[in-house]
Amino acid sequence: MRILILGGDGFCGWPSALHLSAHGHQVTIADSLVRRRIDDELGVQSLTPISPLSERVRAWADVTGHRIDVAEFDLARDYEALTELLTTFRPEAIVHFAEQRAAPYSMKSPDLKRYTIDNNLNATHNLLAALVHTGIDAHVVHLGTMGVYGYESVPVDLPEGYLTVTYPDRNGRSHTREILYPTAPGSVYHLTKSLDQLVFQFYARNDGVRITDLHQGIVWGTQTDETNLDPRLINRFDYDGDFGTVLNRFLVQAAVGHPLTVHGTGGQTRAFINIRDTVRCIRLAAETGDAVDGRVRVMNQVTETHRVADLAHLVAQTVGADISEVPNPRAEADENQLSARNDTLIGLGLEPTRLATGLLKESVEIAQKYTDRVDVSRIPCTSYWNRNRRSVATERVE
Amino acid sequence: MRILILGGDGFCGWPSALHLSAHGHQVTIADSLVRRRIDDELGVQSLTPISPLSERVRAWADVTGHRIDVAEFDLARDYEALTELLTTFRPEAIVHFAEQRAAPYSMKSPDLKRYTIDNNLNATHNLLAALVHTGIDAHVVHLGTMGVYGYESVPVDLPEGYLTVTYPDRNGRSHTREILYPTAPGSVYHLTKSLDQLVFQFYARNDGVRITDLHQGIVWGTQTDETNLDPRLINRFDYDGDFGTVLNRFLVQAAVGHPLTVHGTGGQTRAFINIRDTVRCIRLAAETGDAVDGRVRVMNQVTETHRVADLAHLVAQTVGADISEVPNPRAEADENQLSARNDTLIGLGLEPTRLATGLLKESVEIAQKYTDRVDVSRIPCTSYWNRNRRSVATERVE
Repeated sequence: MRILILGGDGFCGWPSALHLSAHGHQVTIADSLVRRRIDDELGVQSLTPISPLSERVRAWADVTGHRIDVAEFDLARDYEALTELLTTFRPEAIVHFAEQRAAPYSMKSPDLKRYTIDNNLNATHNLLAALVHTGIDAHVVHLGTMGVYGYESVPVDLPEGYLTVTYPDRNGRSHTREILYPTAPGSVYHLTKSLDQLVFQFYARNDGVRITDLHQGIVWGTQTDETNLDPRLINRFDYDGDFGTVLNRFLVQAAVGHPLTVHGTGGQTRAFINIRDTVRCIRLAAETGDAVDGRVRVMNQVTETHRVADLAHLVAQTVGADISEVPNPRAEADENQLSARNDTLIGLGLEPTRLATGLLKESVEIAQKYTDRVDVSRIPCTSYWNRNRRSVATERVE
Repeated sequence: MRILILGGDGFCGWPSALHLSAHGHQVTIADSLVRRRIDDELGVQSLTPISPLSERVRAWADVTGHRIDVAEFDLARDYEALTELLTTFRPEAIVHFAEQRAAPYSMKSPDLKRYTIDNNLNATHNLLAALVHTGIDAHVVHLGTMGVYGYESVPVDLPEGYLTVTYPDRNGRSHTREILYPTAPGSVYHLTKSLDQLVFQFYARNDGVRITDLHQGIVWGTQTDETNLDPRLINRFDYDGDFGTVLNRFLVQAAVGHPLTVHGTGGQTRAFINIRDTVRCIRLAAETGDAVDGRVRVMNQVTETHRVADLAHLVAQTVGADISEVPNPRAEADENQLSARNDTLIGLGLEPTRLATGLLKESVEIAQKYTDRVDVSRIPCTSYWNRNRRSVATERVE
């Protein structure tokens, strides 16, 4: 298939592009390279030394003989470049990773809240408007997040996108209908993914655009079979307080002998997935677009759930480290339950890679290998979700 | 109270600004004047000869002695002008009309779909981010629309914003929770109002911003007690296929001897409100912001519901005109039921102005008075909701 990867230079986008290319698909990457500019702006860098995108695709051609084309433009701003690419490449599937993806970054300042809303909504909407306008019937695979649902302790398995509810009319008669599972986003970033859902629903209903929305858990790990083939193909590994996800941050803290910083009690339960499973899920979703009709297909892209404190203990045991509780900058419950159904991806053939396997060891080794690249001062999260959180954190630190 | 009216030069914004000023409030209008530029772009004009905004506020001061200040800037683009105005004027309430408000216009082209998303979302989000950032505790009153719910024939009174639903968990135990009433927007314009709801919910929960969202029906009528005081205060009256609402379009068609164009069978039932009630509702909402907490207050701002075909017959009888069925450009059911609760505004003291009163006559007279300003060719709607609608309409016309 001809597959366009929007945001194909990023942490999930790059290994997905390679995985799809390795499986015989004709891949084009579109990316504005903004993620690299944000590193510069924040004064941080990927733990792993990533190559420029042009060198990455050259290396991939060297090693495998597969060609990946690159188009550099900003999806949220450059609609003309998008329609031009659509009409020349004529993709059959489009994987859409091209959104600002960090919750703490989205809460850092009014300007970054505004950037996140403006960038993510216009990126998603430009893509859908362009598909309708050009008449290209490509299946859109979008990376969403489990985080749109918030983390209240509702004692249900989170279903895949929809919920069937019952309610009475004014005469007391009962009615049943299927609704989008109600969202309760916990940051401006999560809000944008919740907004995306309504945009997808509209374009699926009004114009018949085929859309799969993947509600992904927190990704851990770095390398995949494909990025392991050559050092120039190495994937990004973020450990900073804005873009680093919890497990990868713990691994770096352990590698440099820093206590593992747990927000609050660490009683937050979250859903996880290894990057190797992410790329497989993306492929399974992209290859099954014919099954999608005017109703958005939603899959929970998760393989397991863990309490954050349990993860900290697992890393502390494996590598040897202390654990330190710090004030939680987020406006969220200290403790919650969570379980989520993932029947659709399992049904498509996903065999989950679990945390207890040797892969945690691989991540530890990567973290240890590149400790000289770590700036310890950038590990803590310095965004606060609101005024109250900021003052609590400041008091406790002083 | 100090009240800021965002979009205070528009069809609802201008008479609301005058009504609030007449009731002793200190009013500032902010507007980019984009609505006047859209008239130029479309090559149409208000049926009524509206004065420039600077002349409007001068006339208001002449006639009543009340001063209304004006700030000209684009809410979606000029965040600095917004924060500057907030910190100098320090409003206690902010009425937010500053969004592109026409469904047909929002479906006219890919560029106008993109403009509507970009403008409306950034306008709303800029306001909320600025309130959090500046620490101004103003109550936000937003003009939403009943149209976010779509027009399926659900046999319930539409409640005010929320719905209590029941659903089973995996063990078959039943759970109850209150959710935002599920939306089913029928155009990109309606989609933006549906997106706004999620943005409001987030800022109310995370930052405690006080917000009232008014889900308004279709407005009819032109003049209010205040705009009637002087010809220079006259309100806008749109009759074109993009911005004209259904009843006002019928009145103009009747006035110029054109058949009343009913989309499809006219079996669509819609909710209505007179412009005189709109301005009262805005005042009632703005004056009761102390009652609003972290949960968005939603009111249905409607007074009655009618089938479109019945409205056409009423106008045809009153003025004398034929009725002509034309293909419906919208992707919607030909027939639907609709009833909506409006308990909150009635509870605050609203006394509805109904269609059967003499006000229809006032509108007829305005339409007849300005028939020399009508361009009949601009009355039909020329936007099509999707590819299928466009081809059906083209076939039937040929």
